Amino acid sequence: MYQYVHGGDIYSDPSLKQNKEMLDYSANINPLGIPAGVGRALKNAVADCVNYPDPFCRELRAGLSRYFFLPAEMIYCGNGAADVLFRIMTALRPKRTLVLAPTFADYEKAAVAAGSKIDYFTLHEKNEFAVTPEILKAITKRTEMVVLCNPNNPTGKLMDKELLLTVLQHCEALHIPLLVDECFMDFVKDKDKYSLLDQLTGHPGLIILKAFTKIFAIPGVRLGFCLASDAGLMDKLYACGQDWNVSVLAQAAGAAALEETDYLEETRELIAVEKAYLAAQLRLIKLQVFEGAANYLLIKTTHNYPWPEKLKKHHILIRDCSNYHGLSEGYYRIAVKTRRDNRKLIRIMKELVKHDMFNYIN
Amino acid sequence: MYQYVHGGDIYSDPSLKQNKEMLDYSANINPLGIPAGVGRALKNAVADCVNYPDPFCRELRAGLSRYFFLPAEMIYCGNGAADVLFRIMTALRPKRTLVLAPTFADYEKAAVAAGSKIDYFTLHEKNEFAVTPEILKAITKRTEMVVLCNPNNPTGKLMDKELLLTVLQHCEALHIPLLVDECFMDFVKDKDKYSLLDQLTGHPGLIILKAFTKIFAIPGVRLGFCLASDAGLMDKLYACGQDWNVSVLAQAAGAAALEETDYLEETRELIAVEKAYLAAQLRLIKLQVFEGAANYLLIKTTHNYPWPEKLKKHHILIRDCSNYHGLSEGYYRIAVKTRRDNRKLIRIMKELVKHDMFNYIN
Repeated sequence: MYQYVHGGDIYSDPSLKQNKEMLDYSANINPLGIPAGVGRALKNAVADCVNYPDPFCRELRAGLSRYFFLPAEMIYCGNGAADVLFRIMTALRPKRTLVLAPTFADYEKAAVAAGSKIDYFTLHEKNEFAVTPEILKAITKRTEMVVLCNPNNPTGKLMDKELLLTVLQHCEALHIPLLVDECFMDFVKDKDKYSLLDQLTGHPGLIILKAFTKIFAIPGVRLGFCLASDAGLMDKLYACGQDWNVSVLAQAAGAAALEETDYLEETRELIAVEKAYLAAQLRLIKLQVFEGAANYLLIKTTHNYPWPEKLKKHHILIRDCSNYHGLSEGYYRIAVKTRRDNRKLIRIMKELVKHDMFNYIN
Repeated sequence: MYQYVHGGDIYSDPSLKQNKEMLDYSANINPLGIPAGVGRALKNAVADCVNYPDPFCRELRAGLSRYFFLPAEMIYCGNGAADVLFRIMTALRPKRTLVLAPTFADYEKAAVAAGSKIDYFTLHEKNEFAVTPEILKAITKRTEMVVLCNPNNPTGKLMDKELLLTVLQHCEALHIPLLVDECFMDFVKDKDKYSLLDQLTGHPGLIILKAFTKIFAIPGVRLGFCLASDAGLMDKLYACGQDWNVSVLAQAAGAAALEETDYLEETRELIAVEKAYLAAQLRLIKLQVFEGAANYLLIKTTHNYPWPEKLKKHHILIRDCSNYHGLSEGYYRIAVKTRRDNRKLIRIMKELVKHDMFNYIN
């Protein structure tokens, strides 16, 4: 039977969703919650749901165009970044796709659904899971698609911009589309130093994937998009799926979200401070912490301790990363939340350590 | 460039959407509007959008299961019926698909996106666009998928149940999946006489497509589903696309909609009365009316009169059907709305006839 492999599943156990004290550290959502303006826009748009949505998301794309200083023709919106990802694979139908390991599982799922075989570029712990120049050798004439995630999920690791530009050139020389998922880039301090947004014009093989989901805390609304300068690709994206994939509600939420500039500043400050706090506290209980650039932390324990199950009894979900290609038992991903929540998580983790492994921290 | 071919496009001309007097007769939406309970459920669900949606729509499918007296395992929900349609084609990848002509354009679009060739079974005006037993000859060993729309769009024509059962048996004998789109069946009086819902159990090749969009007047929310007894197909539907295609909002709207039984009764009564009124009035201005079983009327004029453009000047949209395979210039589809709206449509049509074609009705 089909297996769901991601975080954020608060529905499998009905008692969890009903529990108001539940803390979901397994999904990487902005801890500031839905911006007030976006919540209002959603409620106001309910009456407009009597109409079909605009198949071309004209108002939203005009807003994104102003936001990114890029023409609206370079923007395609979908029912979450995952929908856009599946469309890209359906439109391009690569026969061999290179993905990182570990990385977000759906690049592989989408490529396989479109008939692709998968090659992995394995990231090593000794390099702190960084992408190394070795990747250039892995991108060969047989490769028909390269997918990078920057910062990567679940490691939070950013790619060196110079290497990224070399990869882009290498792909271009071999006529291989390069998809870079920047869904978590908005959480990064100095993001402009790392993003490839400035490379879109003049690089038709480059596609950048982005989402409203994480940064605006609206995963339940479903809104993502991609940017690319290849007009032919844009046409194919419209042609290879339904016309009304972005709901009236999502289009309204997206347009409102683009006004929330203070919220974004506040988010980046909060994440920086709380990530440092969480990392320090987790290290105090002898967990290895990979301190990435995004709003989550990959952690590792060599002790055979069932953290997810133990924390679940306290209504806290964390992401077991043992099902990622390239990771194994003992790796977990923890979202960065507010100080109040983080304090509670750490308090309970410390209590568990004290209770179950009293010899462990001495 | 990619061309949108459907009705309901109130966005191409910004002055239309802003005009409160605008009447959209080009999309077949329940004229009673969004049920109050559904509107409330949507607003209440906004706060829950901070979580990812349930990838398995468990609560909604449990509700649908009670509603249809069928196991939840036989139900798959998607981001509108169009999303489900594309998933079915992606999952089954037929090489040759038989569709009706004329019919809803997206069966062909979805099949082609999955790599299929298209065969048409042409419906003839002399038979009032009815599906005839000739279709059995059109379903051959080379056919890998058959799509029927019942009642058909844009004709509103129902299929004879006996013929439908023969088609089902014929498809089964040749191991060809049969997809029947019953998205407009809820508008039909005595719908149980025509629906194939009672045939799902024991017929694993049968797939029935349905939507909340039209009958509950929420096209902007995006919610559709299919029913089938083939567990292998259900698994493939989950595997061949993203996990979170049905938003938190759509799942809440759907669960609330299933409580609206009075609304459905009222809808069927209103449609019957208003359809008869509209048909009679349209015939008075010498338009040919094909009076189908759904909430719309296919009409035909042999006069070379540009009805859509003329009505648009009065902020009324109707569906020009000349881009349907099997139809040509002079065919239009008009939704059935409330008496107030229908009176206005007819008044303006009569005025246009009087003003532009004063010789026409004498």
